[in-house]
Amino acid sequence: MTFNDGLVTANLSISLDGFVAGANQSLEDPLGEGGERLHDWMFKQREANQSIVDQILAPRAYIMGRNMFGPIRGDWPDDAWNGWWGDDPPYHGPVFVLTHHPRDPVAMQGGTTFHFVTTGIDDALAQARAAAGSGRVSVAGGASTVRQYLAAGRIDRIILSISPITLGAGERLFDGLDDLALKPVDVLSNELATHITYDVVR
Amino acid sequence: MTFNDGLVTANLSISLDGFVAGANQSLEDPLGEGGERLHDWMFKQREANQSIVDQILAPRAYIMGRNMFGPIRGDWPDDAWNGWWGDDPPYHGPVFVLTHHPRDPVAMQGGTTFHFVTTGIDDALAQARAAAGSGRVSVAGGASTVRQYLAAGRIDRIILSISPITLGAGERLFDGLDDLALKPVDVLSNELATHITYDVVR
Repeated sequence: MTFNDGLVTANLSISLDGFVAGANQSLEDPLGEGGERLHDWMFKQREANQSIVDQILAPRAYIMGRNMFGPIRGDWPDDAWNGWWGDDPPYHGPVFVLTHHPRDPVAMQGGTTFHFVTTGIDDALAQARAAAGSGRVSVAGGASTVRQYLAAGRIDRIILSISPITLGAGERLFDGLDDLALKPVDVLSNELATHITYDVVR
Repeated sequence: MTFNDGLVTANLSISLDGFVAGANQSLEDPLGEGGERLHDWMFKQREANQSIVDQILAPRAYIMGRNMFGPIRGDWPDDAWNGWWGDDPPYHGPVFVLTHHPRDPVAMQGGTTFHFVTTGIDDALAQARAAAGSGRVSVAGGASTVRQYLAAGRIDRIILSISPITLGAGERLFDGLDDLALKPVDVLSNELATHITYDVVR
């Protein structure tokens, strides 16, 4: 499988009851209560799920919402937050962060650079496409950002990693997307997740 | 695969956004608005999905809620409703209908007999187990009935047939089941559905 296909992709871990994050997200609990369990497949059974991890890390540029980037709201403080991922984030490429508050780009170790986009989702996508060349662009999250791009018809392919648990509360991915039609094109299932790759039907 | 395994099973078609029936169920629209589309896989691509249909029809006894049996509430009228399925329902065996209103059993063509149980879900299960012998018992639906049996820990295996559509509104399967843990044991995926077989983890 080649990833030099210019696709715009998204991938999310989702509970049986449709939540991609638990309730009460916070600095201590960025994925909300129980939300970490959605990603057990990635950390506890990495080998069996490596092909999905490869796809998550294949894109050449990423887009994320400010809620995924960090818990800070409003203007950027002086000792600015640089994401959840430490000095060497796993993206190793440009990451376009949607925000209403301008900020200069921040170059991290390992090739990740955070660019802050105040001009909306389509401009962020245009910048990410330009940066990715023939490579993939990933709408990395969170849920509301993926939802906006899905609603706008901008996502070609989505990988849902269904964790076999219920959370009972949290943030739902598909709320408000009442006429989405997808087409399953691939599936990988093991104990901690069932990964379904969907093409978005235009 | 043998079905003479004494399991208590359930199977539901579910949308990407977690609905097993659309909004506004009615006599004309028993699965609610858009709910019929959840079952497209069964009617439009039967051959590719036959192994799932076989499992749905394998049990030797069924349990269903009164909402699945019909739209009538309260006491049974004189010209009593005999289900949605015509003179020869697809069950070909005993069907135990949960209700608060006593009624004599109704024998249909083809071996289906509707028994009306007013003594609760555990008694209905005991009766269904006795009728099924070493065969399977299916909790056929609707959502609230499956939810009650799941909450009580009475279901061994559940097949979720995930249709690649969103409905936007309707009845959710997993509401209130906030600590369910399942284990995927089988998957079958094609254009109109991804069927995941889960064992319920005790």
